[in-house]
Amino acid sequence: MNLVYKGKTKDVYAMENGNYLLKFKDDVTGENGVFDPGANTVGLTIEGVGKAGLSLTKFFFEKLNSMGIPTHYVSANINDATMIVKPATMFGNGVEVICRYRAVGSFLRRYGMYAEEGQPLDAFVEITLKDDERQDPPITEDALDMLGILSKDEYRILKDLTKKIGNVVKEELAKKGMELYDIKFEFGRIGEDKHIALIDEISGGNMRAYKDGKYIEPLELERLMLED
Amino acid sequence: MNLVYKGKTKDVYAMENGNYLLKFKDDVTGENGVFDPGANTVGLTIEGVGKAGLSLTKFFFEKLNSMGIPTHYVSANINDATMIVKPATMFGNGVEVICRYRAVGSFLRRYGMYAEEGQPLDAFVEITLKDDERQDPPITEDALDMLGILSKDEYRILKDLTKKIGNVVKEELAKKGMELYDIKFEFGRIGEDKHIALIDEISGGNMRAYKDGKYIEPLELERLMLED
Repeated sequence: MNLVYKGKTKDVYAMENGNYLLKFKDDVTGENGVFDPGANTVGLTIEGVGKAGLSLTKFFFEKLNSMGIPTHYVSANINDATMIVKPATMFGNGVEVICRYRAVGSFLRRYGMYAEEGQPLDAFVEITLKDDERQDPPITEDALDMLGILSKDEYRILKDLTKKIGNVVKEELAKKGMELYDIKFEFGRIGEDKHIALIDEISGGNMRAYKDGKYIEPLELERLMLED
Repeated sequence: MNLVYKGKTKDVYAMENGNYLLKFKDDVTGENGVFDPGANTVGLTIEGVGKAGLSLTKFFFEKLNSMGIPTHYVSANINDATMIVKPATMFGNGVEVICRYRAVGSFLRRYGMYAEEGQPLDAFVEITLKDDERQDPPITEDALDMLGILSKDEYRILKDLTKKIGNVVKEELAKKGMELYDIKFEFGRIGEDKHIALIDEISGGNMRAYKDGKYIEPLELERLMLED
């Protein structure tokens, strides 16, 4: 098994059967020691973050697979903090797909002239390029198509899947008394038919959630979601 | 006639018959004394810029009107550096529509991971919000619709008009041996039927053009375009 990529929060190993093994680490993104799911740097290390993130990812990916929503998920081993996934090809060098239910974060920084903080948004989907050097710029359907990153047909499927998956996460959080504000996903093309599937993870570090008007930290979110 | 708005490059007066009179000034946008059509500040003042910009605007708006492409233009008086226009309502607090034929400027700053400097683009249309405080953020069709700035139907018309007008400008510049790299437009809703029409101006300050591989300054561009 060969290490093929060292990520900010996960390492990736190639398996002999063609699948990949993701090793979840205890690092979370942020700046100056403060967690920020949209940040491009590792902000802090918290004991147990890897296993907690994987546990929530396992919960959601198994749920999505059972609903027939395509993901790269094969299996997970919580004790080892590892997840086995199918190989996927990225869109260009990677895009992030954001689903928003409340106007916060980068949405508000861009569109604050027209939106108030916390204003409800109806599963609004945005795409940004994974490009640390250029601060993950937002990109339109037309630009994605023109630059050969994502076809118009793929864009439609991606947007539809994003809303579906966002709504699944939102409903599950609501069962635990939390409100999902926004969540970011990654997608890839899987299999010979190159169908679009959810990849990466769905953990506390990918979303912003509030309970009784108070922001819930990723580790606390995962604890609340996974307790009986 | 009342002054109703002092702009960066034009002042706007309300006329008694409901039309508006635009007074073109000798200020151009830029930073630190260097012209930049995408800048939000007045960078420098050049004698004659107002009349030259109006002359080119008159040329293009009369051409567009004769082609049946809707604009706000009524008439122009070059000696006074004034133009009479029909009243128009803006989209939100104003948007800028950019038509790109080569990858330069903010396009390259955002999408440089996928595009090379000067790479041909096929009349690629982008929309940015007029919001100095937030550095004129780019915005998608979905966000424009959701925030009530522009409906999906209006977006389609706007994009179509932008390509048509961009191509008219590109062809006219080509007749003088210049190549249009990009151009920005403003549109508004005019008349009782609120039809979408080109507003503002089409002058050297709105576009980037090259001749024999060399960038052409706005005043020089206007001189080349208007000479016999």
